[in-house]
Order: sequence, then C-alpha cells, then structure tokens
Amino acid sequence: MNVTFTVQRGSQSGKIVQDTSHRQLGRNDAYVKITHSGLCGTDEHYLCRGIVLGHEGIGLVEAVGPDVTSVKVGDRVGFGWVHKTCGRCEYCLTGLDSYCDNRAQFGTHDHDVGSFASHAVWDADALFKIPHGIDSADAAPLMCGGATVWTPYSLYGIRPSDRVGILGIGGLGHLAIQFGAKMGCKVVVFSSSESKREDAMRLGASEFHVLTADSSLEGIKPVKHMLLCGNAQPDYNRIIELTASAGKIYNLTVSFEPSPVPMLPLLVKGISIQGSAGAPRAEIRKMLDFAEQHGIKPAIMKWPLNTQGVEDAMKALREGKMRYRGVLVAE
Amino acid sequence: MNVTFTVQRGSQSGKIVQDTSHRQLGRNDAYVKITHSGLCGTDEHYLCRGIVLGHEGIGLVEAVGPDVTSVKVGDRVGFGWVHKTCGRCEYCLTGLDSYCDNRAQFGTHDHDVGSFASHAVWDADALFKIPHGIDSADAAPLMCGGATVWTPYSLYGIRPSDRVGILGIGGLGHLAIQFGAKMGCKVVVFSSSESKREDAMRLGASEFHVLTADSSLEGIKPVKHMLLCGNAQPDYNRIIELTASAGKIYNLTVSFEPSPVPMLPLLVKGISIQGSAGAPRAEIRKMLDFAEQHGIKPAIMKWPLNTQGVEDAMKALREGKMRYRGVLVAE
Repeated sequence: MNVTFTVQRGSQSGKIVQDTSHRQLGRNDAYVKITHSGLCGTDEHYLCRGIVLGHEGIGLVEAVGPDVTSVKVGDRVGFGWVHKTCGRCEYCLTGLDSYCDNRAQFGTHDHDVGSFASHAVWDADALFKIPHGIDSADAAPLMCGGATVWTPYSLYGIRPSDRVGILGIGGLGHLAIQFGAKMGCKVVVFSSSESKREDAMRLGASEFHVLTADSSLEGIKPVKHMLLCGNAQPDYNRIIELTASAGKIYNLTVSFEPSPVPMLPLLVKGISIQGSAGAPRAEIRKMLDFAEQHGIKPAIMKWPLNTQGVEDAMKALREGKMRYRGVLVAE
Repeated sequence: MNVTFTVQRGSQSGKIVQDTSHRQLGRNDAYVKITHSGLCGTDEHYLCRGIVLGHEGIGLVEAVGPDVTSVKVGDRVGFGWVHKTCGRCEYCLTGLDSYCDNRAQFGTHDHDVGSFASHAVWDADALFKIPHGIDSADAAPLMCGGATVWTPYSLYGIRPSDRVGILGIGGLGHLAIQFGAKMGCKVVVFSSSESKREDAMRLGASEFHVLTADSSLEGIKPVKHMLLCGNAQPDYNRIIELTASAGKIYNLTVSFEPSPVPMLPLLVKGISIQGSAGAPRAEIRKMLDFAEQHGIKPAIMKWPLNTQGVEDAMKALREGKMRYRGVLVAE
C-alpha cells in the first residue's frame, strides 16, 4: 500500500517548509493520521537538517500492514522518539530498548518521519495506545517530555520516601514535579525565578527555592535525587552541594558544550551524574497509565499544525514564552 | 590510660617531621602498635597541613579501653581512612557508613591520627581483623587502595559476566584488575604505556589496550563498567566512547580541577559517572576475606617506617617510580 501525505520540514535556513511525502506501508507498519503533536526543544536542534520534525505524535490508525497485530484501524495511538528497535540486542531483551544497539538506524529523524505532518508511517510495535482518560492534546507532550522525566523515577531507584529536587520549571520540570508528587516524594523545586513559585506549589512541590548564581544555599536540606530539567547546564559545584551523599544527579538537558564538573566533591560524597534520554517502551506504557490514574497533564499552549503554526510555536519556545509545552493541533 | 608514641607529620614546607603524641585511651579505644603502613597518593595532598599522615595501618592491639569487645590485646588489625562513624545516621544504618553524616568530625586526619607512627589510638569498632592468610605488608595497601577499588565491584552492580575496564595501572589499578579477574569479569585494561602490558595480563586482564590522546579506539568493544584508576582525570570524550550504553564510569581519582564532561553523549548513551571514595566497613571485611580466599595481593616496594623512609617513599611515588604501592615497615 502506498500513501501520500503532507509534512513540515526544517530547512537549511531555519524556515519551516511544507512538503509531500510518499511511503510504502511495510508489513508491520501502521498509517497514522496525526491529530496532535507536541513541540520539544530538540526539534530546534534538528531545525536546519531538512528533515520532518516532531516526535511527540498522537493520532488515529487509518490503515495497517498485513502482519500488524498490536493495533487496529481506529485506535488512538501515540509515538515518540524512536521509530523501531531491533528486538534482538541485549538492551531490547532486558527492558532497555531505548538504548537499542541498532537505534541509530531506527531513530525517528533518521527515517525522515515525524509528527509535524498530516500522517506518519510507523512500526506498529513502537506505537502506544493512549488511555481513555487522557486527552490527545495532553498526551502529546508525554511522548517525549513525559518519557524523559519518567525514566529517573522508574529506572534508577527513586523511592516515594525520597527528597527529589527539580531544577528548572519548563516543559520537563513541570511534568517531573507532578510525577514525583503523585509518587509521594517530597519534591523540592529550584528555579531562577520567584515568579514560578505559585506554579510549582500548585503542581505538587513541597518546597520552592530561588536558585541564582549567588543565592545562598544555607538551610536548604540536600536532596537524594536531583533532576536537571532546565534548558542549560547548571553550575555543578552548587548542584553537588545541594545533593546528599550517595545521591544522584540526572542530566536530562541536551547541551552541546562540555560542562566543568568538580570531581573531588563528587568522589567524596559518592554522588553520580546519570545521563538519561527517553524511556524504554514498557516504561512509556506505565507512565501513560500512571498519568491517567493521577490526572497528570502538561500545561499547554496550542497552535495549528501547519507551517505557520510550527513557526510560531518554535518562536515562542525560543523566546522563553512557552508555559510550559507547545502542542500543534491538526485543523 | 595515657599513652605516648612517635608520629611522622607533614609540615608547611613539605618536609616530614618526627614528633611525639600524647593521648588518653577512650572507653572504646584500642591502642595499636603499628607494624606496617601503606602510602597513598592522598598523603601527598595532606603533606603541608602539619598532621600525622598515613591511613593504611596494620598492627597489633597493645591495650584496650574498658568497653572494647570487638578486639582484644594481641589481635592483628588494620585501619583505614575513617577513625569512627556515628552509628546513628541514615548512612550508618543502611550499610553506607563510609558516607556517615558525621564523618567529617570522625575522619582520620581531622583527629590527627595516622599510620605513619609507632602507634595509633583508634575506636575499636573501626578496626579490621586481618585474615591469617594475608601478610601484614600485603594487607596495608588494602586498607585504602583495596577498599577504593572494591566499592565499584560491591555497591554498584558489576556482575561477573560484565566487561570491566580499568584505566591506569598503578596503586589502584593493579588491585582492581585482580579483584575483577577473580570475580570472573572480563577485565579490559587501558594504559598509556605498552610497558605495562605484561603486568596487566599477569594480574588477570583479558585484554590490554594502549590509550593515548590520539590512539585509535577502533575495534575496541566498549565496557559496561569503566574504573578510572589513573592519577589524573582522563579525556571524558574518549572514556564515554569506550563505555557501553547504560554503562557506568567510576571516578576514583582525586583531582582538584573540574573536568570538562561532554553531557550530550552521556545523555544519549544513558551513562553515569559515579564518584566513589573508600568503602563501608562491612564491605572492607568482605574485601579482606575475598583477597585472602583468592590470594590477591598488592605489588609492593618497602621502606623503613621512619622520617627518612616516609620521605623516600613519597619521593618515589611523586616521581612515578612506585611499582605499585609503597609500604613502610616498622624497624
């Protein structure tokens, strides 16, 4: 089966360009009509490569290949960063398929598929059924943003009795606060701006501290787990000071420059810095169920899913005006 | 009971100075006649503070306070970095007493006690009985060096089926190779010098690779766990490249300058950098038993335990001539 659909690509100049894509549906592929797409900071990083952007897609299955058994026509599904995994490597076999040895060849952008489009062709086993209790617009940002902040909570031993720090309230942080609070953690939010205090507390934070380059850390009890959810790397001297011995710092922030890390206090306190991106598929399913159960949803701003809508949404994100995650809605 | 004994202190000028120390034996203290002391790179860092140096002590219990039940006069014991822990904080109660909340006030150097001395007064519960099968000279470097490399193997999930990298063959690395090999791991040694190949293989390595600033990494299968055992911080770009996705890098190297860490590959590969120092007491006991069982011993060079001996041993270490750990022997 051949399909033709509309896509929004980045371009060398940084302008969004509408294009038409032709695909053949593979035996285990699903053809998904996209109704909503989240916008992620990473889309900006891929803007000039000329590929179809977007990796937080929600839509309806319109057609399936002959081997598909996991979804059927009419299902409401979501998809994220990775189009497919090999299913055979050590990572796929041990619940860590987000680190699939062959993910480079299966990744979203490498296949020139994305959610800034009218449709997408996607391996059916990499689609997620969206629970009934979650609106499609709310589900979109969970596919990458939600997955990203879920991983520290699911893979690295955060316990409900732990004190969890969230640095930065943005697209990631405002979801990380909710997950932590609903798991029973004491969520301690650090933000550069006093103006976010009310949002933080409403989302479930137990404490809020303004953290700037020279703010005092006195009286702040260190956290066991510190999730770096900002859009820039922090001063690791201060972050290590705010983290308890044997604690963990989770680096969820994409950045291209190396960060200076003071290794002596890291060693003396037995702290680890854990890089983390995305989530294994089994965990994305659990994250969606947990979000439905507890009514966790992103705060979103909406734009139409067309060339101008993508341009405008990306501009808002670039200018720091997003509160807190952008969603493009098919017209 | 009051005791008087001879100690070797550092001094502001960096010269080793012999001195006499007077102490009162506390109710749970033991008075230990030191027969052997290891020399650790950290002693150099404390050289100019005027304190008694040395934290790899082996000796015989000569007297005990009235409350002591864990050792008796005549026992052969060892001691390491920490003089005492509080026994009450979360860390002490959960098997992580090496991160005791109050360790700063109980640490070796803060109490001006050390193993470069004729005797030491030590909390009896922080002494380790040395298994019969380990010579005192061999036991000394295990008290800090052995403990340091044992921790990644014991606390952070290294499995016998794992591929374990050891960067640097020195006081730490040559012990780390032996522990890994005897646990059944595939030990992959990285050294800047081809001249260490023979030692590495003899100690139990499965592979040896020369790693310099511009050596090719091609064909080297990444390791799951990478122990940084060198005396300087490595190029983290290359170390991350040599570490498998979801792998761990253990920073065991004391360094005072921040290290530039490329956060993007850390994040994409889901790798963590774990700072680590020393070992909890329960683990030091297990490490000693394991070393006895498998005949693991340091390669040592000996000097007399006196002012000149300390000076000479420290000079050898400073000049990179130690193969691989220095031991001072009481005359």
